[in-house]
Amino acid sequence: MPIVNIYMYEGRSLDQKRKLAAEVTEAICRALDVGPDVVRIMINDMPRENMAVAGVLNIDKGK
Amino acid sequence: MPIVNIYMYEGRSLDQKRKLAAEVTEAICRALDVGPDVVRIMINDMPRENMAVAGVLNIDKGK
Amino acid sequence: MPIVNIYMYEGRSLDQKRKLAAEVTEAICRALDVGPDVVRIMINDMPRENMAVAGVLNIDKGK
Amino acid sequence: MPIVNIYMYEGRSLDQKRKLAAEVTEAICRALDVGPDVVRIMINDMPRENMAVAGVLNIDKGK
Amino acid sequence: MPIVNIYMYEGRSLDQKRKLAAEVTEAICRALDVGPDVVRIMINDMPRENMAVAGVLNIDKGK
Amino acid sequence: MPIVNIYMYEGRSLDQKRKLAAEVTEAICRALDVGPDVVRIMINDMPRENMAVAGVLNIDKGK
Repeated sequence: MPIVNIYMYEGRSLDQKRKLAAEVTEAICRALDVGPDVVRIMINDMPRENMAVAGVLNIDKGK
Repeated sequence: MPIVNIYMYEGRSLDQKRKLAAEVTEAICRALDVGPDVVRIMINDMPRENMAVAGVLNIDKGK
Repeated sequence: MPIVNIYMYEGRSLDQKRKLAAEVTEAICRALDVGPDVVRIMINDMPRENMAVAGVLNIDKGK
Repeated sequence: MPIVNIYMYEGRSLDQKRKLAAEVTEAICRALDVGPDVVRIMINDMPRENMAVAGVLNIDKGK
Repeated sequence: MPIVNIYMYEGRSLDQKRKLAAEVTEAICRALDVGPDVVRIMINDMPRENMAVAGVLNIDKGK
Repeated sequence: MPIVNIYMYEGRSLDQKRKLAAEVTEAICRALDVGPDVVRIMINDMPRENMAVAGVLNIDKGK
């Protein structure tokens, strides 16, 4: 532990994912006073047609 | 809040996803007396080989 | 399928949960043209100190 | 119930998924004394660039 | 990896959870040909009022 | 988006959760170049008897 599940829009670059994994792990280590080895992060690439806010798919909002 | 994670078989049309997002959001608003702006929905398209009931993959059941 | 995971603030009444389950199931049946028997809903009651928007816990926002 | 969500590296064969669904279902039935019909399993195929341990993406570790 | 999230009714004993963790881990190791050290299991104890099938809360079904 | 689900041992203080929410949100904003308003974080407090590594419950490991 901790185990982190991140849902985000698909299309991010490999470098963005590298930075995301490194920075979120460091943030968790600082906040919870744990070592990085116990932190696992899973990234879920979500198509824009699979995300909705206020009942409207994000693909339809041009976001 | 609320945040809703829906797992369903892949292959649904964009219009079905539009209808799903709109109708589920309205249902949640009615039931919990909240406004649509706070409702977020995530849809996970699941291949039939990734779903099992009673130990048998759905792809093997012809469903 | 579909399997639905709903995260919402804790403190809702049993009747609200009844209405939520019934209405969300009907919404899914209409949108995806499936029967109610295949729809499973899980509700996660979330304490306000366990939810954050824009980096601030909801408990600290008075929501 | 129970509903099981398994996150694993993508690339497993259909037969491995068949075996996974069957064996995990039997294990749950033995441990919880339930019948197989109530056990649902969802498999999430995760790309190696979407998994990180200790802040490093698994794709960068050659795992 | 793999990371497993199990949702089940609350009320199981510690020994049942021990057996569940051990047996599901062994099942995964056999099916995916991985060692036990990489398998993580999370158990979510769900109240019966938080689970619904076919739009009806399980607490109302006497299950 | 992004929506983040963090599973961690129960027992952390409110201040640790405040720090966790703030630091993880900032880390995500830096890595993905998004504003804080679109970042939602959910924290799941997990009992040690509900977490297992290598088939052994953490409560039995004295962690």
